[in-house]
Amino acid sequence: MNQQQYDELHGYRRQDGENWVKRKVKNFGLVFTRNGCKKAVKRRLPILDWSSRYHKSQLSADIFAGVTTGIYNVPQAMSYSTLAGLPPVHGLYASFFSPIFYAIFGSSPTSSIGVFSITCLMVNNCIEKMQHGDNAIRFPGLTSIEIITSLCLLTGLFQTIMSVFRFNKAMLLLPESSVSAITFSACFFGIVNQIPKIFGFSVPHRNEFMFSLFHSMYDIAVHIPKLNEWTTLLSAGSLIYLIVSQMLFEPLFKKICKKFPFPRDLILMTLAITISYFLNLDAKYGVQTLRTVPRGFPHFGIPRIDLWIVIWYDAASIAIVAYSVTIAMGRMYASELKYRLDTNQELLALGITNFGSSFFPVFPTSCSLSRTVVNKDSGARSQLSGIVSALIILGVIEFFGVFLEPLPKCVLATIVVFVVRSLLKKCSELPYFWRCSINDFWIWIVTAIVTLCTDIAPGVFVGMAFALLTLAIPFLQPTTKRLGQIGEHDFKAKTHYQSAKETPFPIIRFDAPLIFCNAEKFTDMINDEISEKRENAANGSLEGWTAIILDCHTWTYTDSMGMDAVKEANDCLHRFNAILLFANLKSSVRRQYRAAGLIEERPIDEEDLEKEEKRIEQEESRIQEEKKTLSSVSMKMNRNKNKCAEANVESGGHDDEDISHIEIKISQDQKQLAEDEKKLVQDKKTLVQVRNELKMKQKKLKEFNKLSPEDQEKKRNEEVKKISYNQIYPSIQDALHAAPELITKQQELFDIKKSK
Amino acid sequence: MNQQQYDELHGYRRQDGENWVKRKVKNFGLVFTRNGCKKAVKRRLPILDWSSRYHKSQLSADIFAGVTTGIYNVPQAMSYSTLAGLPPVHGLYASFFSPIFYAIFGSSPTSSIGVFSITCLMVNNCIEKMQHGDNAIRFPGLTSIEIITSLCLLTGLFQTIMSVFRFNKAMLLLPESSVSAITFSACFFGIVNQIPKIFGFSVPHRNEFMFSLFHSMYDIAVHIPKLNEWTTLLSAGSLIYLIVSQMLFEPLFKKICKKFPFPRDLILMTLAITISYFLNLDAKYGVQTLRTVPRGFPHFGIPRIDLWIVIWYDAASIAIVAYSVTIAMGRMYASELKYRLDTNQELLALGITNFGSSFFPVFPTSCSLSRTVVNKDSGARSQLSGIVSALIILGVIEFFGVFLEPLPKCVLATIVVFVVRSLLKKCSELPYFWRCSINDFWIWIVTAIVTLCTDIAPGVFVGMAFALLTLAIPFLQPTTKRLGQIGEHDFKAKTHYQSAKETPFPIIRFDAPLIFCNAEKFTDMINDEISEKRENAANGSLEGWTAIILDCHTWTYTDSMGMDAVKEANDCLHRFNAILLFANLKSSVRRQYRAAGLIEERPIDEEDLEKEEKRIEQEESRIQEEKKTLSSVSMKMNRNKNKCAEANVESGGHDDEDISHIEIKISQDQKQLAEDEKKLVQDKKTLVQVRNELKMKQKKLKEFNKLSPEDQEKKRNEEVKKISYNQIYPSIQDALHAAPELITKQQELFDIKKSK
Repeated sequence: MNQQQYDELHGYRRQDGENWVKRKVKNFGLVFTRNGCKKAVKRRLPILDWSSRYHKSQLSADIFAGVTTGIYNVPQAMSYSTLAGLPPVHGLYASFFSPIFYAIFGSSPTSSIGVFSITCLMVNNCIEKMQHGDNAIRFPGLTSIEIITSLCLLTGLFQTIMSVFRFNKAMLLLPESSVSAITFSACFFGIVNQIPKIFGFSVPHRNEFMFSLFHSMYDIAVHIPKLNEWTTLLSAGSLIYLIVSQMLFEPLFKKICKKFPFPRDLILMTLAITISYFLNLDAKYGVQTLRTVPRGFPHFGIPRIDLWIVIWYDAASIAIVAYSVTIAMGRMYASELKYRLDTNQELLALGITNFGSSFFPVFPTSCSLSRTVVNKDSGARSQLSGIVSALIILGVIEFFGVFLEPLPKCVLATIVVFVVRSLLKKCSELPYFWRCSINDFWIWIVTAIVTLCTDIAPGVFVGMAFALLTLAIPFLQPTTKRLGQIGEHDFKAKTHYQSAKETPFPIIRFDAPLIFCNAEKFTDMINDEISEKRENAANGSLEGWTAIILDCHTWTYTDSMGMDAVKEANDCLHRFNAILLFANLKSSVRRQYRAAGLIEERPIDEEDLEKEEKRIEQEESRIQEEKKTLSSVSMKMNRNKNKCAEANVESGGHDDEDISHIEIKISQDQKQLAEDEKKLVQDKKTLVQVRNELKMKQKKLKEFNKLSPEDQEKKRNEEVKKISYNQIYPSIQDALHAAPELITKQQELFDIKKSK
Repeated sequence: MNQQQYDELHGYRRQDGENWVKRKVKNFGLVFTRNGCKKAVKRRLPILDWSSRYHKSQLSADIFAGVTTGIYNVPQAMSYSTLAGLPPVHGLYASFFSPIFYAIFGSSPTSSIGVFSITCLMVNNCIEKMQHGDNAIRFPGLTSIEIITSLCLLTGLFQTIMSVFRFNKAMLLLPESSVSAITFSACFFGIVNQIPKIFGFSVPHRNEFMFSLFHSMYDIAVHIPKLNEWTTLLSAGSLIYLIVSQMLFEPLFKKICKKFPFPRDLILMTLAITISYFLNLDAKYGVQTLRTVPRGFPHFGIPRIDLWIVIWYDAASIAIVAYSVTIAMGRMYASELKYRLDTNQELLALGITNFGSSFFPVFPTSCSLSRTVVNKDSGARSQLSGIVSALIILGVIEFFGVFLEPLPKCVLATIVVFVVRSLLKKCSELPYFWRCSINDFWIWIVTAIVTLCTDIAPGVFVGMAFALLTLAIPFLQPTTKRLGQIGEHDFKAKTHYQSAKETPFPIIRFDAPLIFCNAEKFTDMINDEISEKRENAANGSLEGWTAIILDCHTWTYTDSMGMDAVKEANDCLHRFNAILLFANLKSSVRRQYRAAGLIEERPIDEEDLEKEEKRIEQEESRIQEEKKTLSSVSMKMNRNKNKCAEANVESGGHDDEDISHIEIKISQDQKQLAEDEKKLVQDKKTLVQVRNELKMKQKKLKEFNKLSPEDQEKKRNEEVKKISYNQIYPSIQDALHAAPELITKQQELFDIKKSK
């Protein structure tokens, strides 16, 4: 049974998916219906959704979680802000605006948006890039606030555009191993950045694209003798406190109070402020403190957009990193808290958050792991907790700013280094990757090396590009296996299964879709396969037809170069007396072959056509008749119904049931009829198609007859070169069964030709 | 029968391929053996190969072809050189040096290396870029010869390095549709470049990255009133001649002389020179001519390498385009002339050609379609024809240079436009692509747009990147199909086959390897699958176990995110009372799962181990004994042999045959024994492995027993979460058979748990 017969027997049909454009238009049209509009608004403004379902009992939990997260957030926001190379107050601003926007547009109830180490580092790199070198000349007198607001606006814009064009799909190309490597390398940047602050000295800035990290390390090593002893002492004290509290206080505290995290950093900061204030560290000992912290609500301002031409690259990479981290966090609790993360909406929420907050002195924000964990563990159940935590931050900005002024910068730097250091553990994933997924291993290594040698933004792009490249490897280097038979229906690689038996004809599996990047390999394989025959041919002794079976079940699609390769292979094998048989060829590939004229045309039988036409006519008349009878019956019934209704009023009614039975019957019949009609329309279409094909064929035949005998011969040869329907089989077994007969036929034809 | 049982029954074994590094070292080691060295030298210096097999009878054909190609080459070299923005003599130099180098290192006998339209255009773009704008300030007083030699050296270096590191594989990523689009767009650049020359005016240079083509067109439109009437007239005359000769003279000439092509351009140039000389067009009518053509052999010079930092981009793209065109040409006649194209050697040959010729005033070269066709059609059978054609060019350079001086530039420009115009036909491939391969269509469109809007070099890179991206699409958007049963062993998509019957358990096929970029989609699919169960669970009525079968035959490999997704799916389904069954899971994926600890550990039976140990011991002793007997027999025989030999001398000998029989027998036995020994070593290794596994297990068990009951419970739960061997089946049918029993078991377990 060849493929065509198989398809006919089992009723093969191709349901053409709706046109992409049509589908999109239709989906878009739905928005304007009432229900669709409601749904769309609810999707795009999740606040309407969760606030309408909000239950009073959640309130206390949300407020508690919000307060906890808010308090936890204060030191984090300030220290990460210094990581971004900015005064700590900007971190507070960022932690105020972002959660408010996110609560309106975000779909995850636990994600806490705000400062995040990696994005802060990227912001820092961007600021340094802009304030030094060529850019400093191009944009003289640029303040860091101008840079971050411009960056924030562009990041938000990128994310919004990406969301509108559904580019969240493209973000899937950034694998977790890449993110892990970026995180790992970013730590080095973070730590190296903070070391001068910890020891209280400063290093000159270098504006280099390559190896800036190593140069900074060198600079630090050179400048370390200039350290400030008091700053170093204070940092050391902070570090000891942090280590002790992590090892001792935190476990103790956890036993006492499970929900509220130990306010480690807050205590350290309070202590440091007290010491600094009373000993007057800044003035007396040269320990740098924050000195001035602006009070009150930040000023509204319009970001500069002329910087975009230089910072688009940074904005794009921040947009990608922020998104991928936010999605990872959002998904973490999705199954536990039973919500479904809408990745597109998350992207939009991030975009609007960054877009909106860019009108205040705020840098791009993202979700952060530690805060999200705190938020969830302290009981957050809805986005309200984010709003509460924002209000806490607002309180700090409004009222406590002045108290923060004596805080030594080195304490914040120590906190950053202490927190960031734990991310270095990411490299412990490497042995796991090496063991189970070599691709992930190399993606990690390449991303890490690029990030360490250049910067985070190139790391993101190279990570994506390299991951994309690993996708190409199975296409570029497909394995080819010779199959043997196990049992009746099973064909497995001979190298893998000892009991796989030799088949009368070689069966070859080419383990990738045949496309441009492996067409050459396929051709080589076919050439190897017939190299013996080729040699015999060179000696003039080309005898005996044989067959080669290709198992094509991995060929999910093909392209023009793939089709050329198949054509060439079919041709070449034919020249050396071998028939190429295709088994398990997917229907989509067959359609492509047919469109390219690679498969011989379907033979059309005129008698069959006429029969089909008659059948359709009969069917049509049947349907018409039935329709008539049905309509008459239903009309009658309606009349009866009315009568009955009247009668019922009089007699108290018992015929209702009978009537409804009949009604159901009629509606069923009508449905059946409608389906039959649909099918008929389909059949008619097919008939018209086949008729057209026939006409085309007849036209071609006429043209063919007009040609000179030479050209006729040429055309005939071309036809012969096409893949015949007898070369395509639904399974290897069918191909094996059919091969001997095919060979005999070919042999006969060949002998006849030869004898001529 | 589950997968494990199947594997045991059919003798599954995994032949670990040799380590990549080991294989490479081994291959490299081969070079130092005598045969390997000979082979390597012959591969790397194809001239040794073809000259040693050279037959006198080929000589006349090669000389004729060489002369023909040489004559054909003269006008082409000169006109393409103007296309590159250089005096025509550089084209002649390029056509002299390149074929000489290629004849030594190239592996294709018909390919003609020299000037090529696309690379010439790219060279032109590079020169313009270097002589204007920022670069003109950076490198003041740069001559075009300095640029082209530096470019040529770097291109050669790139190609050589790519050849050494086998990067010819990566070049497979440039599909033909991309090359076609680049060719098409390059034509526009070529034509627009030549128009001012044709009309005899000049336009100011613009140094823009984007839309330079459109700006040039605008400039031409503005400046066209300044045209020189005589130049225009001459160009028009040339064009008419070219059209007439193509339509009339060439077919006529072909009937008379089949092998030699009609010297259309040569005649035109001769005519133009004569007219120009006698009418003194340059001085009297302002028609620009070549004026001075340097005579004699070009001077040797060392290229500048300080330009590389700016031109590496152009060099890389020229290297890629030149290679892909050369390969396409080389392959065109490979099957007809029965040679095998060594793509790596071709790349090396191109590299050395460019590297070598860069010490003369020559620009990067490539194979050209038209010349290769002329070369082959006029009978070239070996690389000698290239050398002959180079000598013809040398003659022109040496002796005829002075005659070329009155040649008007506009004639060369007209020839270029006339030839290049035919490449515009490339866009006629588009409907074909649209019909049979939508990927190719989009690759074409994107590459063409990028090339037209920027330049050829970015077009090459974007073309490659986009082709790479199309590879990712099937991974990003895999189709998922529900399968139905046809017959006994056949499972097909229900949407495609009407007779595919519903199975008792849903069978789902996920049509791509489960990796990072579709892990999310897989999770979503699983969630959709159990959404009903999920709802029931929310209502508290989670009853009745069921199974879901995954057809994994498209899962050729996986990665960490894919494994996480499988783990999660297995877990999640288990929670909602569904068993996930894997059918057709490839052995490589199973190995990855096992390495990641996703599959439960293999149960090891100590008794079996002991049995195996005994068997190995017995086998070992048997082999030892047999070895002894064999060696004693062979020793005896040797003694006998000597005796016989002595005896033979005396008696004339007849025992020889017997002895040789015995010898053969012994050697066979020895072989068998060696094989047995090999197997034994393998078995021993396996035993040691299994023993280690057992030890590890016992260790784990001990640790487990030490744990607190709580932790034990946790660990036990983790074990339960792993995929059991009973969840993996070699075929869908096996899974279908096994499912009911599994479900009953789970149900019982579940009921027991519940009742507790």
